[in-house]
Amino acid sequence: MNYQEIIEKAIEAIHKRTFYAQYPEHPKSYGEDTFPIAEKAYQAQLQKPFKGLLQTGETAWRGEEKSPYTQEVLGITYPIFEVETLIEKAQVAQKIWRKVSIEKRAELLVTTLERCKERFHEIALATHHTTGQAYVMAFQASGPHAADRALEALALAYQELKRFPSSVYWEKPMGRITASLDKAFLPIPKGIGLVIGCSTFPTWNTLPGLFANLMTGNVSIVKPHPTAIYPMAIYVAELQKVLQENEIDTNVIQLAVDSSDNLITKKLAEHLAIQLIDFTGSNAFGSYIESLPNKTVFTEKSGVNSVIVDSADDLREVMRNLAFAVSLYSGQMCTTPQNFFIPSTGVYDDGELIDYATVVDLFRNEVAALSLNPKLSGILGTIQSEKTLERANSAGNLGGNVVLEAPKVTHPQFEQARICAPTIIEVEADQLDIYTQELFGPIVLVIKTKDTQHSLQLAQNLVREKGALTCAAYCVDETKKEEITEAMNEVFAPVSLNFTGMFWVNQHATFSDFHGTGGNPAGNASYTDPLFVNRRFVWVGNREKRS
Amino acid sequence: MNYQEIIEKAIEAIHKRTFYAQYPEHPKSYGEDTFPIAEKAYQAQLQKPFKGLLQTGETAWRGEEKSPYTQEVLGITYPIFEVETLIEKAQVAQKIWRKVSIEKRAELLVTTLERCKERFHEIALATHHTTGQAYVMAFQASGPHAADRALEALALAYQELKRFPSSVYWEKPMGRITASLDKAFLPIPKGIGLVIGCSTFPTWNTLPGLFANLMTGNVSIVKPHPTAIYPMAIYVAELQKVLQENEIDTNVIQLAVDSSDNLITKKLAEHLAIQLIDFTGSNAFGSYIESLPNKTVFTEKSGVNSVIVDSADDLREVMRNLAFAVSLYSGQMCTTPQNFFIPSTGVYDDGELIDYATVVDLFRNEVAALSLNPKLSGILGTIQSEKTLERANSAGNLGGNVVLEAPKVTHPQFEQARICAPTIIEVEADQLDIYTQELFGPIVLVIKTKDTQHSLQLAQNLVREKGALTCAAYCVDETKKEEITEAMNEVFAPVSLNFTGMFWVNQHATFSDFHGTGGNPAGNASYTDPLFVNRRFVWVGNREKRS
Repeated sequence: MNYQEIIEKAIEAIHKRTFYAQYPEHPKSYGEDTFPIAEKAYQAQLQKPFKGLLQTGETAWRGEEKSPYTQEVLGITYPIFEVETLIEKAQVAQKIWRKVSIEKRAELLVTTLERCKERFHEIALATHHTTGQAYVMAFQASGPHAADRALEALALAYQELKRFPSSVYWEKPMGRITASLDKAFLPIPKGIGLVIGCSTFPTWNTLPGLFANLMTGNVSIVKPHPTAIYPMAIYVAELQKVLQENEIDTNVIQLAVDSSDNLITKKLAEHLAIQLIDFTGSNAFGSYIESLPNKTVFTEKSGVNSVIVDSADDLREVMRNLAFAVSLYSGQMCTTPQNFFIPSTGVYDDGELIDYATVVDLFRNEVAALSLNPKLSGILGTIQSEKTLERANSAGNLGGNVVLEAPKVTHPQFEQARICAPTIIEVEADQLDIYTQELFGPIVLVIKTKDTQHSLQLAQNLVREKGALTCAAYCVDETKKEEITEAMNEVFAPVSLNFTGMFWVNQHATFSDFHGTGGNPAGNASYTDPLFVNRRFVWVGNREKRS
Repeated sequence: MNYQEIIEKAIEAIHKRTFYAQYPEHPKSYGEDTFPIAEKAYQAQLQKPFKGLLQTGETAWRGEEKSPYTQEVLGITYPIFEVETLIEKAQVAQKIWRKVSIEKRAELLVTTLERCKERFHEIALATHHTTGQAYVMAFQASGPHAADRALEALALAYQELKRFPSSVYWEKPMGRITASLDKAFLPIPKGIGLVIGCSTFPTWNTLPGLFANLMTGNVSIVKPHPTAIYPMAIYVAELQKVLQENEIDTNVIQLAVDSSDNLITKKLAEHLAIQLIDFTGSNAFGSYIESLPNKTVFTEKSGVNSVIVDSADDLREVMRNLAFAVSLYSGQMCTTPQNFFIPSTGVYDDGELIDYATVVDLFRNEVAALSLNPKLSGILGTIQSEKTLERANSAGNLGGNVVLEAPKVTHPQFEQARICAPTIIEVEADQLDIYTQELFGPIVLVIKTKDTQHSLQLAQNLVREKGALTCAAYCVDETKKEEITEAMNEVFAPVSLNFTGMFWVNQHATFSDFHGTGGNPAGNASYTDPLFVNRRFVWVGNREKRS
């Protein structure tokens, strides 16, 4: 397929919203021999400067990435630049990039994704050893899923950029004469974009904004989290290579690495030359980013995701599903369910009323049972940061009733792995101070409510005030299902109903599921709705009278 | 045509951007007998309460409109409501309106426009005697042009609301099994909208936001300017009538009249229940509106529009065109050109260099000559507010060199008419304090620059700092034309090149020209780009596993 076919198929998929993937998610789809090659490349990169970037004028080489599996530093260093150097280079590149045609931009971006496909295993290893994600998740999230999200963003942008004709001949009948004008309609890029990455999903949450920026003609500076640079460095390197081959200023995309003792994010974000900011990360920093004047800002901050348990056809299957959902990557996904609202009046299971204590017990047992699963390490992954581990370890002090102390687990391969299973805490509905906060990591709260109506009211208020990326509900009553869906949708939280088996509420499928709605405090953007691309450029119409 | 055909034609027109009008602009197109009927209705309304609204619970009846033609109060009173009453009724109506189908909403809105068509002459008289616009302009701006803009907004909204399928069956092949989900994609309205009108274009600047709100499922409160209520009251009354006929809560649209001694705009705008605000008016108030937290805001504030004069094929034709452009509605259009940048090195006219003084003189003479035109009052209209007249009368004190004192003019029909022709003031390029402000009304500034490069630089900075809705340029050199266009487009100002004859830079054609770009300080919105409608609702996707 050439780039145009790939984009056309993506545009079609976005508007059909049935299943589609340009990049298959199974590691095996990429060939048997690709993993050993990637592992060799990965090993060769450790303890060395990352030389793949085409950026010059660095003031130092730094790096502090550390594997949550081995607890050893990766020893990879990256070039460090002055903020003013980055901005000046971006300004020069912007003059060129804004004049590159829509088609050419699209071609270069699709070509880059196709090139990165060849390095998915190296990207996966880089992600695995920086984020702590299990290998398969690291492969999928940072490789095919991230590339699909990038394609989704660029394809929708491509369509919007071509929405209005670039030129028209306008004739207006005015009685006996006809007046006429030549008109041109131009989607003018806003300027220089800053894309701020996070430590847990360094490419999945970075590529959509980056590719939307580049497609709409905005050069970009990517500021990765100091503890997860390597995966994104590969994407940037490939982008720069493709630009170079096409004789376009490689500073169209720059990697801006900093270190925890000298963070440059605020300096970059506040710079007058920065017009667009994409941010994934904490609530506090996200709100600061949103408050910056005269910037176009796209945020994904933290939210608190709820599960409303009302009734089920098979409650054990439900709890098995939820146990997996809270264990996946040790609750370090922005879509991990945290708050389980369970009515004290019990839950109907295939028509039989199961009392509250038994419901909690069922859930507890499924989470505990998972810790005996031989595939556990492939589900939990490891804990990305020391801070998250501390939070998990001290969950018992939150003030609730500890229903399940995190089962002791070890990693079969990495003795030093920072691995941790979920803790379950039970709280009362009036202990709002405990459960109306995001407890990032493997901490699950069970909230005892009066009834489903009460659960729903608490969950709705929580989204309105703290935001959420998703909400799971279990209910077999049609009227109640509608009530739950309407109430949560009213505060712009999507609802996943009765997920069991191979579906988990944490997962959003590219080309079908929107990730985030942009409508509640969890963030102001969505992958990929029309606003995600349209806000990056401005339609300007020029007119000329023919002489 | 039924409503669906009307919308389909509008969507097609929006994307073709060639000439199209659903509502012809010529008063004659609406029948010979319609004017006398309208005049009777208008006369019958004077000195009486406006009884067309279906709102109840008013606390008083007030009105202070005054004709700039007769200087007499119209004596029409409108019901006054407590802010809390308006909000509570909107909240009740919102629960109903959000559930009305997209098709039904579209049908009701198009039906309303078709009904209002029958009242265009009454709307014109109401506009004429509140804004001071000449009759034909009042007819066009408040009738067909406003209705076309309303249709444009609702049609684009309609298309966007239907962009993604409302439901899909999603199947994902997973090895031997196929997993499946039912999905629904819903465009959820943001909530209650406040639409704040202005005194000079009370319907043209109000209908786009209002119709975009209603189409996207957001009930609305219209807060007209206390001196120009009547034209918008007719539209609201017709909307309410159509709602009533369809047995839908008429509070889906409410008119919130206030008076200059008790303004309620801030109280409404700051109310937590208000999610969306559309505003047209002053810079100061618009910036206040933009600063309100947690609101989705659409603004059209003031800007300073420039004319860059470089060269021409027929300079006299150019100056004749510009004289008309500055005289139309006495410079009270947001698109009126104010600043004329003319190089001191002169201007080439059909290859012949005309010195600077002669260029200014040509312009001056054309403006002065217009004051002898028997059709002058139909061009100038009258001055809407006392404040604008005062500003015009004291233009001589601005600090520049008075090139033309406003020629004395009278109105042939209305002895008391607040009529005023343009004053022309010449300033130096370094007198920025004078020309970097909007001087709303019949005041024109000629700025003497070094050369066109200098003109362009000053004009570009002006847009960047103060904003502009439009920019006119006269230039016969291809390279320079491109330079001017690029520089102005870079700061998101559209350029109209070499307009003479029947085209004036002030005019933006619905379905073809964007009004405002939203990219510079003149405002953050554009009639009608995709953002103008997409920002009013949120895409939410629900998923359910089939049992």
